[in-house]
Amino acid sequence: MKLFGGIEAGGTKFVCAIGDETGKILSEVTLPTHTPEETLPAVIKFFQESEYAKKITAFGIGSFGPIDCNVNSLKYGYITSTPKKDWINCDIVGAIKDAFKKPVGFATDVATAALGEYAWGEGQNLDHLVYMTIGTGIGAASVINGELLHGAGHQEIGHMLIPQDKKLDPFEGICPYHHNCFEGLASGVAIKKRWSLESALYLPNHHKAWDIEADYIAAGLMNIILNLSPNKIILGGGVMRQTHLFAKIRERVVKKINGYVQLENMDTFIVPPGLSDRSGVVGAIALAKKTLEK
Amino acid sequence: MKLFGGIEAGGTKFVCAIGDETGKILSEVTLPTHTPEETLPAVIKFFQESEYAKKITAFGIGSFGPIDCNVNSLKYGYITSTPKKDWINCDIVGAIKDAFKKPVGFATDVATAALGEYAWGEGQNLDHLVYMTIGTGIGAASVINGELLHGAGHQEIGHMLIPQDKKLDPFEGICPYHHNCFEGLASGVAIKKRWSLESALYLPNHHKAWDIEADYIAAGLMNIILNLSPNKIILGGGVMRQTHLFAKIRERVVKKINGYVQLENMDTFIVPPGLSDRSGVVGAIALAKKTLEK
Repeated sequence: MKLFGGIEAGGTKFVCAIGDETGKILSEVTLPTHTPEETLPAVIKFFQESEYAKKITAFGIGSFGPIDCNVNSLKYGYITSTPKKDWINCDIVGAIKDAFKKPVGFATDVATAALGEYAWGEGQNLDHLVYMTIGTGIGAASVINGELLHGAGHQEIGHMLIPQDKKLDPFEGICPYHHNCFEGLASGVAIKKRWSLESALYLPNHHKAWDIEADYIAAGLMNIILNLSPNKIILGGGVMRQTHLFAKIRERVVKKINGYVQLENMDTFIVPPGLSDRSGVVGAIALAKKTLEK
Repeated sequence: MKLFGGIEAGGTKFVCAIGDETGKILSEVTLPTHTPEETLPAVIKFFQESEYAKKITAFGIGSFGPIDCNVNSLKYGYITSTPKKDWINCDIVGAIKDAFKKPVGFATDVATAALGEYAWGEGQNLDHLVYMTIGTGIGAASVINGELLHGAGHQEIGHMLIPQDKKLDPFEGICPYHHNCFEGLASGVAIKKRWSLESALYLPNHHKAWDIEADYIAAGLMNIILNLSPNKIILGGGVMRQTHLFAKIRERVVKKINGYVQLENMDTFIVPPGLSDRSGVVGAIALAKKTLEK
């Protein structure tokens, strides 16, 4: 059986794994994200010293960003203008290619998670999938007919404009670009700032914060449904660990769309990740597999 | 050279044309939309009696709707729950297939127009395109990597939720499903109702109605850009005959997105249809050609 190397490159940690064609992980390590000069050699060492090293046929990297994943670009494979200064203009794909001389797939962290869910999570046997993470920020990626949706750039759904009723919620929003866009109103950072919290987790389930939150998420999902018409929407990320939100969101999506388009069974249409918090690393294996197939 | 039959099936008229592989129209007729029993035989007769009849290799139909264009559905090829009662459950694809025994492509009117622009209009040599019509209603379709974007259903971008500043515009919106969704605020019908007009054309260019309109369209376009990242957005339909709107919309899209994603040159990014009001019928030829190629 062919093996694959997967790298979930995050802002605080790198999860590196070796997996097989079924998505099963055979070996895994988590490394702290220091500078590229420290972290990348440690990543390479993990794969090189593995007992499976010689069987790895391709790599997949799901990276924090912004990244350049336009294969026609001179800076393809680079992390670009990230706030993490040490990583600006880091040629992460080049580093892995140089070390192993194997095909390397490259995508955003959220796109990789979407691929993982499509291959071995909640998206199995479906054609069209949206994966959204609602945590510090809001990001999303879509699989349409089995392929990651990618236009001139990647999806930036988190910054969509959605309605805000300032009488119910006078909060000004936290997005430095758009103030009260979707992420500006509904990200974890927005919840904390709106309610002056140390952590969003301290709010009880019946707090009206969650009604407001569910309403914004439902508005965002309505716009996504009307743009992309997915078979399923997977919601991950820190905010969605508040699992009581799912019922509130489903109810509000139905109410907002109001019968205009036919919706699937809501309990299986808007769901948590099938791979729990493993979508990213398993997705990196899926990305590697997809890269080899091409 | 292969020839194709194109049918732009509209609520008031059917435009039928015979075109070649370059999109050139060789013969064309416009027929009024009466009942299916009257109109469809007239459509068939036009093609049958044409001097080009025997050279037609495939047909394309771009239809008013709602339609069923899911090829796995029992009612594939039907106009379904249209307000035009005579056409409910009309098997329009079946009628053309029965008459000519040739492949028949089927899509919404707006999807067909998008294909026309992609093949022979403003979308030539591009990978990703959004075509939007802003008239009585608002509809849109997208071509991504050369294929019409189609998820579980087709795009219904006109009903996206967008922000409304009720101090600037207290209008309640005209959408029977969502009141103040994009179409509810920005369609031609909404403009007429907001300003109690017989026709939107009676408003002078400097009227604030157009600032409000441009602002809503820019909000809708921002959401589309963040969802789909197209290379170009084509705006057609009756409202966009107010060509002074283009400059206002471009300016507001730039201001709203505020540098968050890199935008192309706005003068070539948001444009009127390259095929003018011919996108639909030329698109039906493009759809026929695409259907034959498959």
